[in-house]
Amino acid sequence: MASTQQRLRVAVAGASGYAGGELLRIAARHPHLEIGALTAHSNAGSRLGELQPHLRGLADRVLEPTTAEALAGHDVVVLGLPHGASGEIAAQLPDDVLVLDLGADHRLASAADWEAFYGSAHAGTWPYGLPELIRTAADGSVTTQRDRLAGARRIAVPGCNVTAVTLALQPGVAAGLVSPRDVVAVLANGYSGAGKALKPHLLAAEGLGSAAPYAVGGTHRHIPEIAQNLRVAGADDVSISFTPTLVPMSRGILATVTARLAPGREAASAADVRAVWEQAYADEPFVDLLPAGQWPSTAATLGANTALVQVALDAAAGRVVVVTALDNLVKGTAGQAVQAMNLALGLPETAGLVTEGVAP
Amino acid sequence: MASTQQRLRVAVAGASGYAGGELLRIAARHPHLEIGALTAHSNAGSRLGELQPHLRGLADRVLEPTTAEALAGHDVVVLGLPHGASGEIAAQLPDDVLVLDLGADHRLASAADWEAFYGSAHAGTWPYGLPELIRTAADGSVTTQRDRLAGARRIAVPGCNVTAVTLALQPGVAAGLVSPRDVVAVLANGYSGAGKALKPHLLAAEGLGSAAPYAVGGTHRHIPEIAQNLRVAGADDVSISFTPTLVPMSRGILATVTARLAPGREAASAADVRAVWEQAYADEPFVDLLPAGQWPSTAATLGANTALVQVALDAAAGRVVVVTALDNLVKGTAGQAVQAMNLALGLPETAGLVTEGVAP
Amino acid sequence: MASTQQRLRVAVAGASGYAGGELLRIAARHPHLEIGALTAHSNAGSRLGELQPHLRGLADRVLEPTTAEALAGHDVVVLGLPHGASGEIAAQLPDDVLVLDLGADHRLASAADWEAFYGSAHAGTWPYGLPELIRTAADGSVTTQRDRLAGARRIAVPGCNVTAVTLALQPGVAAGLVSPRDVVAVLANGYSGAGKALKPHLLAAEGLGSAAPYAVGGTHRHIPEIAQNLRVAGADDVSISFTPTLVPMSRGILATVTARLAPGREAASAADVRAVWEQAYADEPFVDLLPAGQWPSTAATLGANTALVQVALDAAAGRVVVVTALDNLVKGTAGQAVQAMNLALGLPETAGLVTEGVAP
Amino acid sequence: MASTQQRLRVAVAGASGYAGGELLRIAARHPHLEIGALTAHSNAGSRLGELQPHLRGLADRVLEPTTAEALAGHDVVVLGLPHGASGEIAAQLPDDVLVLDLGADHRLASAADWEAFYGSAHAGTWPYGLPELIRTAADGSVTTQRDRLAGARRIAVPGCNVTAVTLALQPGVAAGLVSPRDVVAVLANGYSGAGKALKPHLLAAEGLGSAAPYAVGGTHRHIPEIAQNLRVAGADDVSISFTPTLVPMSRGILATVTARLAPGREAASAADVRAVWEQAYADEPFVDLLPAGQWPSTAATLGANTALVQVALDAAAGRVVVVTALDNLVKGTAGQAVQAMNLALGLPETAGLVTEGVAP
Repeated sequence: MASTQQRLRVAVAGASGYAGGELLRIAARHPHLEIGALTAHSNAGSRLGELQPHLRGLADRVLEPTTAEALAGHDVVVLGLPHGASGEIAAQLPDDVLVLDLGADHRLASAADWEAFYGSAHAGTWPYGLPELIRTAADGSVTTQRDRLAGARRIAVPGCNVTAVTLALQPGVAAGLVSPRDVVAVLANGYSGAGKALKPHLLAAEGLGSAAPYAVGGTHRHIPEIAQNLRVAGADDVSISFTPTLVPMSRGILATVTARLAPGREAASAADVRAVWEQAYADEPFVDLLPAGQWPSTAATLGANTALVQVALDAAAGRVVVVTALDNLVKGTAGQAVQAMNLALGLPETAGLVTEGVAP
Repeated sequence: MASTQQRLRVAVAGASGYAGGELLRIAARHPHLEIGALTAHSNAGSRLGELQPHLRGLADRVLEPTTAEALAGHDVVVLGLPHGASGEIAAQLPDDVLVLDLGADHRLASAADWEAFYGSAHAGTWPYGLPELIRTAADGSVTTQRDRLAGARRIAVPGCNVTAVTLALQPGVAAGLVSPRDVVAVLANGYSGAGKALKPHLLAAEGLGSAAPYAVGGTHRHIPEIAQNLRVAGADDVSISFTPTLVPMSRGILATVTARLAPGREAASAADVRAVWEQAYADEPFVDLLPAGQWPSTAATLGANTALVQVALDAAAGRVVVVTALDNLVKGTAGQAVQAMNLALGLPETAGLVTEGVAP
Repeated sequence: MASTQQRLRVAVAGASGYAGGELLRIAARHPHLEIGALTAHSNAGSRLGELQPHLRGLADRVLEPTTAEALAGHDVVVLGLPHGASGEIAAQLPDDVLVLDLGADHRLASAADWEAFYGSAHAGTWPYGLPELIRTAADGSVTTQRDRLAGARRIAVPGCNVTAVTLALQPGVAAGLVSPRDVVAVLANGYSGAGKALKPHLLAAEGLGSAAPYAVGGTHRHIPEIAQNLRVAGADDVSISFTPTLVPMSRGILATVTARLAPGREAASAADVRAVWEQAYADEPFVDLLPAGQWPSTAATLGANTALVQVALDAAAGRVVVVTALDNLVKGTAGQAVQAMNLALGLPETAGLVTEGVAP
Repeated sequence: MASTQQRLRVAVAGASGYAGGELLRIAARHPHLEIGALTAHSNAGSRLGELQPHLRGLADRVLEPTTAEALAGHDVVVLGLPHGASGEIAAQLPDDVLVLDLGADHRLASAADWEAFYGSAHAGTWPYGLPELIRTAADGSVTTQRDRLAGARRIAVPGCNVTAVTLALQPGVAAGLVSPRDVVAVLANGYSGAGKALKPHLLAAEGLGSAAPYAVGGTHRHIPEIAQNLRVAGADDVSISFTPTLVPMSRGILATVTARLAPGREAASAADVRAVWEQAYADEPFVDLLPAGQWPSTAATLGANTALVQVALDAAAGRVVVVTALDNLVKGTAGQAVQAMNLALGLPETAGLVTEGVAP
């Protein structure tokens, strides 16, 4: 299937949004893709160039309404829709079409979790599109999620906050080095993570020069997804205090995640700690443990599918501190989707993706 | 002493720095102050207008070298000097002159802590200039630090990070509601907190659009000062994981601080939690617990001596989450110094200070 | 009337907007004002603290609907309303109440200009609230607009862009040194100038890291107001190319304004040029010509009623280049209104206003 | 020469700077390039990953000192050196090696201009690396500079400000529609244009939230280069008022450029004006005239080799207003260098370059 001669046609539903736009930016340079239908809801009928002026090569494309008809006849369909909207449209697409859902609808295995945090009926569970997710089996054997993506035709792409926190902590959890029972994560988030919603607190006049939290105190919808991932990595019981904060940047997530050393592992040294993360990510093309002493910045990941990670042991506090930086629209959304797509279709995992950020 | 007829003369050493400049901005509008000598080190001889172009009324003042002679003959001397420099100059000033040290030299009671984190000889301990600091006595009686500032003639003004974290957590600690043994604090910090040092990572090209941590893993010099404060508030044993992060704003600190509910208090309700913070800050002129559900932003505190606080109970995580926003140069430095000065001199505590931030 | 004993009551219509909020921030510290009714349109019924969280002392005030009844019984009424809305409400207020219109409705003397640029019926012309505006009479005698504000009871407060460009250029025009016939002005504007309108291009995700122009090519509504001011200063015929650009800051205007040396004055030296601006602003409390070689920054004016000005002669281009920096919400709106109010009421012109910016 | 089988080896001198780093970011994805020696001055001996943490694939490369030996044996050498440093090193490189100078040394044809603006001896003139530069011959025939780049082995890459202003104005000048005699250009500039120099006004604390001009009044070194380009395009006599301003973004230039309609062309309509720009750039792969009414933003060009252009006629002012947005490090420096390199080497002009910006 994966030939450079014959390009695969990809349709994007929600092409006027930030996630859809980023998918198109990457797809436009992907050696195996050809961009097909672009659809939108309220923006149907507009030229893409009015809504996504940075996508020069697609400026004259006109958005169609999001219907099964418009999305028919493609090899890949990417859904960048509001929560709750992807189930119905996906059901109308053939089983052999690869459908990637950038929204939350199909991420959670637990219908109860879905209903508790989203307040609607659960749309079902699709294979989870985080290739680096560590899977610790009951017998202790370890694989990654990428094994489950080969040949998949429905993929639920993880959220940006979840990706950052999961990548930060899973090596320590899988190795039994840190306890998943009292995790604290505080994130600095760029504004594009909130989408194009017209809300007063998302105005530039409000955001410039300011930092503010949101969804504090256990209410954020990403919490059950993080817990699910850490359980896959090997945790029995997960407790996480999760606080995102908006800071004045357009893109980027900086996740500061701490967990206690696990009972029985309190004597671990800094070298012991580092070795666990080194081993976990030694062969990952997009997750990069920095040299000791160098800390990640979000700028270094801008536009790239890279997650930068650094870990330290705070012996006095009995905690491991891990910081992850990534671009919420790339490794946190659209780049991750393309990475999962590559795996599903048997293409090289890195096809069409870059690791170099646009900095400074 | 505190008459509006006769103004008190204040000298500022380090008038070319951010802390000194902010002290001058406030002093210029203080009804009881008159600005005397302005001194600097490498900038001696320059017009203030070249270095602090926002201080219009003082633009033609010329900076003198920082010497005891230059600082003589004032009622108040404010030292905005690099760490390690204030002890020597303070020793040369008369005992009846009020000296406020904006640096760290005289904050720590423990010489061992000083030496461990700063690597030099301890300069001694001065009364601590955080008026709202809760003091829990051995008999359980509670006062605040402001009682100890009346009449003081040497005051160590706390740092900005320390102020933010202490104000966030001390009500819960003093009330025995939260445990001080596993505190996690992650801060979003504006660049002015780093001073005017010419370092590559402080360049605008690097900072714009980026977030990055520093001093991760228990190494930050503010940690022992936070622990000291929480012990004053009533903690027996303190453990804190503390991570500051630089985000693209010039001023402001947003501190996200979490602590576990104390043993025996795990059943506390959200209302129980809120009541503790409400009671602690009900009468404070500069610490403002927001209405339930409203979260602080740093923009709302810009230029004001206000600390905005909100608290939530994350029952699932067993943690209280507190967020504090303040202006690092005002409530975090120069405004706090003026507040402490007012108390020391018997002036109204709020004289010369505003609570309205410059927003948006 | 102007006694410190008896405070004047001020009502603010449009208290939920940026201009109204800034008026309140200043009024809260004004020694002669007491804040009365606060009104709004769609936000009526809300606590001010939800909408203007930086105005701590007014947080519990509840907004009333904007009606003549709500605004009755005050000494001063400030209207921060959308264009076209102030005429009707002002007509219902007694003649002896001082009404300050922050909007455009009553600024233009020419009904034709109003109709051409605003497309609605002209509401009439009020005394113009730019105290520093140079008035050159037919006989060549020179005064400023402040003379016309004493005792006024209706004042049209100028816009922020207009203030910046007028202050930049009027000394040269009044002195006949520069020609008003081919002025070019390009402005860098902060986002608060656009108000709280919920438009996609005003989102933080769009604005952070970007610069973009708007209202290019002679279409901006502020153009006839600038021309009117320059004619008052002495110009016969005015032509101006005016381009505002949004840049990533919340507040501030940096206006770069150039004009050709007037016919017959082409041999003017840099000293000649400087002397004209020096003389014009020597006694102005809020307009500050910087020392030669020092250029204005908007940061130095944040929160202050200061306009910083610098001028240079580009002999090769035959043009004078003037740069003005000011805070669009202070000297560009609310501070200017208070300054004009002070003059109208016989208070000290500088009462309640500061010249020190909040920087860095 | 241009085969995908055999990659060309490129060396970068000044690999620790912003221009050198951007060259490497592009070269790393260029299908015909292989990255050879990386050299630096004070940073020689460092790992690239410490200095350019966004260039993940090159993180372990070690910088060598900048010597002719280190640069020997490459097909292409890119010099990202301080002004005045490239002449000597270039003289030591073989004539058949393609040398691209990102600095100013070899851009000006006039030694007198060089000496007047740079104050040192002129290093000589190389073919000018702006492929889209319109060349109007004495007989009125029109070509572009790209014709002169084929086979070139020494190329002087233009500066970012110059590229923005030249692309804005040259169509009108070449067509005789606008006069080059009284051009006004005001630019909003991101901080990366100033390089990594450690100067106080380049600190993030100073730049965040502020706008300020520099090199005002005809002193900027880019002025003679702009004039040279406009003369090549067909101007007889050029006069330009040029003012750059620093605004709070890391990358990007927004140039607002105005010129009077030429004598005899005062009756030109908006359609006439637009037609001139449309015709000039119809076939350009990297210069994009936006649809009428849509204005450029710098965000849309981030990381791309795109220049976005829009033009309007201000009939009342008798001026054409043109706005150009580009990324100063890409179309303004490193992308332009690669574009010129492609032409020199007979590769496809667009090889290794993208037109899609990273937005929002």
